[in-house]
Amino acid sequence: MTRTVLESKTKTVTIGFDEPFCVIGERINPTGRKKLAAELEAGDFSTVEKDALEQVACGAMVLDVNAGVVYNSNPNPNETEPPLMRSMIELVQGLVDVPLCIDSSVPGALEAGLEACEGRPLLNSVTGEEDRLELVLPLVKKYNVPVVAISNDDTGISEDPDVRFAVAKKIVERAADFGIPAHDIVVDPLVMPVGAMASAGQQVFTLVRRLRDELGVNTTCGASNISFGLPNRHGINAAFLPMAIGAGMTSAIMNPVRKVEMEAIRAANFLMNHDPNGGEWIKFSRVLDAVEAGESFADASQAAREAASAGRGGRRRRRG
Amino acid sequence: MTRTVLESKTKTVTIGFDEPFCVIGERINPTGRKKLAAELEAGDFSTVEKDALEQVACGAMVLDVNAGVVYNSNPNPNETEPPLMRSMIELVQGLVDVPLCIDSSVPGALEAGLEACEGRPLLNSVTGEEDRLELVLPLVKKYNVPVVAISNDDTGISEDPDVRFAVAKKIVERAADFGIPAHDIVVDPLVMPVGAMASAGQQVFTLVRRLRDELGVNTTCGASNISFGLPNRHGINAAFLPMAIGAGMTSAIMNPVRKVEMEAIRAANFLMNHDPNGGEWIKFSRVLDAVEAGESFADASQAAREAASAGRGGRRRRRG
Repeated sequence: MTRTVLESKTKTVTIGFDEPFCVIGERINPTGRKKLAAELEAGDFSTVEKDALEQVACGAMVLDVNAGVVYNSNPNPNETEPPLMRSMIELVQGLVDVPLCIDSSVPGALEAGLEACEGRPLLNSVTGEEDRLELVLPLVKKYNVPVVAISNDDTGISEDPDVRFAVAKKIVERAADFGIPAHDIVVDPLVMPVGAMASAGQQVFTLVRRLRDELGVNTTCGASNISFGLPNRHGINAAFLPMAIGAGMTSAIMNPVRKVEMEAIRAANFLMNHDPNGGEWIKFSRVLDAVEAGESFADASQAAREAASAGRGGRRRRRG
Repeated sequence: MTRTVLESKTKTVTIGFDEPFCVIGERINPTGRKKLAAELEAGDFSTVEKDALEQVACGAMVLDVNAGVVYNSNPNPNETEPPLMRSMIELVQGLVDVPLCIDSSVPGALEAGLEACEGRPLLNSVTGEEDRLELVLPLVKKYNVPVVAISNDDTGISEDPDVRFAVAKKIVERAADFGIPAHDIVVDPLVMPVGAMASAGQQVFTLVRRLRDELGVNTTCGASNISFGLPNRHGINAAFLPMAIGAGMTSAIMNPVRKVEMEAIRAANFLMNHDPNGGEWIKFSRVLDAVEAGESFADASQAAREAASAGRGGRRRRRG
């Protein structure tokens, strides 16, 4: 049974066919967030702190950390990303106890993240491009971490799902040459927008089944790509996620501070028999009730989390 | 390719693997609706009229008509149901143009419905019970209509999905003896509440795939059973439906006057490549916007439907 094990200093998260869907929070990422990039350039990490706490409160099991800034003062990411990645990792793992996902296209930033990170982070990512395979797989081996493998190569992103499958297979085989097992590869089959490519949904569902059955690997995706450019995107995302989970998808890199998507995932976990007795659903439904009564999803989730820790603290005190 | 063809006097609806999911509106049914039963006993059909119009406006493609009353004045359904079924069918097909689904456990009511119904209705239902097979299959053959086959038999409803599959297989085989083709059997694999049976969701997904691959039949279900007894039922239903559709389910008997479930189905149609260019999604998203702005789902759906017919009328007038 395929199990990809991630660890923080104190917590283990397993991505697997028999596990609840692994939500990887995507928000700590300055790409396309000019305000956040400017804050980081000024040494202000308050948004990173908020994003870390809020995502975990809302149900992120892993946090992606991306330091992809383009500073006005220095446009060279090989110089700016590694020290920023280190600072962000140190900050985030001091604030929350979930495992991290080190996200960069700059090899120096990946290594800086690996050096700074406690536990067993997920490395994000390698592709089928030759230079990426040669740069990233040695890091994966050296630090003994799992890695996200994105199904594009030197020829770009193919619209043909068979080609994307072949790229994933090549990465798994190349990783094996480095002594990296398939259970440490989490394949992203690449989600196209269904508004631009009518077969985009079915491609993902078919690819996920094949990746699981033929390569035995866990899978992930940038889930919100599916609804790019469409009205009422959350409705598309909230159907896509359960369908992908039903097809065998085991994680996604996504925004967990969204009630509709998180509700869909928690219901899908229950329906996949990954929420014994529906305990998680029943807890979550109290958050839904609070949202119904007017609270924001983030606040309601935070309050539920605090109530749960207070409960645990209380029990501990009674035992002592 | 399996296609189950239903017809009203003027409209054809095909249930099939390559068709949008077929929503069969369940509301015209006095079972458990005491107020409706009392109205019908008094000859008041206003709720039936409202339910017919509202369900079609909200997206029902077929309407289920059930006359299962227990009158205070006459508790014998063999006497009360047939004439009431006839009246209800006549009323409903005078109001809306969608095909109907004649729903009764009283053979006389099924035949009364078949006599009254224009076009090619769906008969609901036969089971694997010997007396039901012998009573209902001759009607199916005589009237050349498709039939819902429910996967229970004289031993009751099995919790073992393999037994439910075997019952479905038996019904398909027995129908073949009558000269009824598999594409006119729509199997209901029976949905158990996931709150009572943790494997209920996975049972359905697996059964639907088997029914499709091994028997080549279309499928249906009472979708809301899945969430029976749970808090925030709509959230469970709205994940269950896309997952069932992804597994190959082709119709459901359900309440279409529910935004959350209908949104999930329309998104799933799009993701299954059964909504070319997302035209239906984009139209539906205007209804979602109106609901967001405070309108009820039924009113917003009705307004969208009226605007569309006015549009069509306009175009016709311009052509003339």
